[in-house]
Amino acid sequence: MLHQTAWLATVTILGVLEQAYFALQVISVRRKCKITPPLTLGPPEFERIFRAQTNCSEYFPIFISLLWVSGIFSHQVLAAFCGLLYLYARYWYFTGYARSAQERLGPMYFSTGVLCILIVLSVVGLTTHFVSLLYF
Amino acid sequence: MLHQTAWLATVTILGVLEQAYFALQVISVRRKCKITPPLTLGPPEFERIFRAQTNCSEYFPIFISLLWVSGIFSHQVLAAFCGLLYLYARYWYFTGYARSAQERLGPMYFSTGVLCILIVLSVVGLTTHFVSLLYF
Amino acid sequence: MLHQTAWLATVTILGVLEQAYFALQVISVRRKCKITPPLTLGPPEFERIFRAQTNCSEYFPIFISLLWVSGIFSHQVLAAFCGLLYLYARYWYFTGYARSAQERLGPMYFSTGVLCILIVLSVVGLTTHFVSLLYF
Repeated sequence: MLHQTAWLATVTILGVLEQAYFALQVISVRRKCKITPPLTLGPPEFERIFRAQTNCSEYFPIFISLLWVSGIFSHQVLAAFCGLLYLYARYWYFTGYARSAQERLGPMYFSTGVLCILIVLSVVGLTTHFVSLLYF
Repeated sequence: MLHQTAWLATVTILGVLEQAYFALQVISVRRKCKITPPLTLGPPEFERIFRAQTNCSEYFPIFISLLWVSGIFSHQVLAAFCGLLYLYARYWYFTGYARSAQERLGPMYFSTGVLCILIVLSVVGLTTHFVSLLYF
Repeated sequence: MLHQTAWLATVTILGVLEQAYFALQVISVRRKCKITPPLTLGPPEFERIFRAQTNCSEYFPIFISLLWVSGIFSHQVLAAFCGLLYLYARYWYFTGYARSAQERLGPMYFSTGVLCILIVLSVVGLTTHFVSLLYF
């Protein structure tokens, strides 16, 4: 089991570290703008960084689910490579969104594309598995 | 490992596709109501669809965790069937909530009931596993 | 596979039950303060409990990912024990935050510390795995 998942687990830990970095950026902008929790409304700069982090958190379980299903049922190294691309796109999304709402769009489309590849890999892997059950 | 999880993985991918559909509905109502990110406040119709999507995202990792634990420790096909019921209830919840806050209640109770069944399946499966360790 | 994950699955189910408890607390304070969905703004007491639940939900998939990677690649019982500590810290965080924003800080630092231990366990486990591939 370890051999088939070690690269997926590695990308998962990198993803967790990225989420930790985003959370630290929110703490930092909260201090800068003096927006103490539980408040979530404030100047545009704060709201952009807060929304960027919320959006990345929302997609994190979707990303992890796709990473593991595509990695286990299709191709581990390919899934892990797509996972790295996704994490890179999310870093680019977060830093872009922190500057302006417009700059989040490019990496948002790119990360959506990577998730679509992971969905295709998963569907191909699962279909192959079920078809092989019919014939063997 | 593939045989014991293929149906769980299939329901997981269907769940991801449902989340993608909800995200597209939020983008669509943002355009219709002209609420550009990072704003999250707006007319009631927008706020209902936005909250519906946020609520489904919040429950997604809980659902996936229960699906896999109950499927692996108790009964894969039963867990996957409950998973399909849950995804159906969430679709019903989302489209109901989009119309009125009142219409979210029926499918909300139904989806909570399905999650309770998955919890019971998990607890029974785990208890059986630990008891079998004691006796064999 | 069951032997290597049963304690991780048990802590996962306990985590789900804790999230259910937090969700019930939000429903309860919504009724008390008469804040009907989809509204998320209200008196400070409501906003604190709402943010506490949102924050715990946001960290749930991160916690589950770390729990399983560290448990599978490093040491299951140690990871499960850290998981219990994390769930205890989150309960303490939630009830503290419900009283005042200040009281969330202690358990927040404690829970972050536990997540750091799970990250270290994961990194050590994965490194050991990859190094062992080089030598054997």
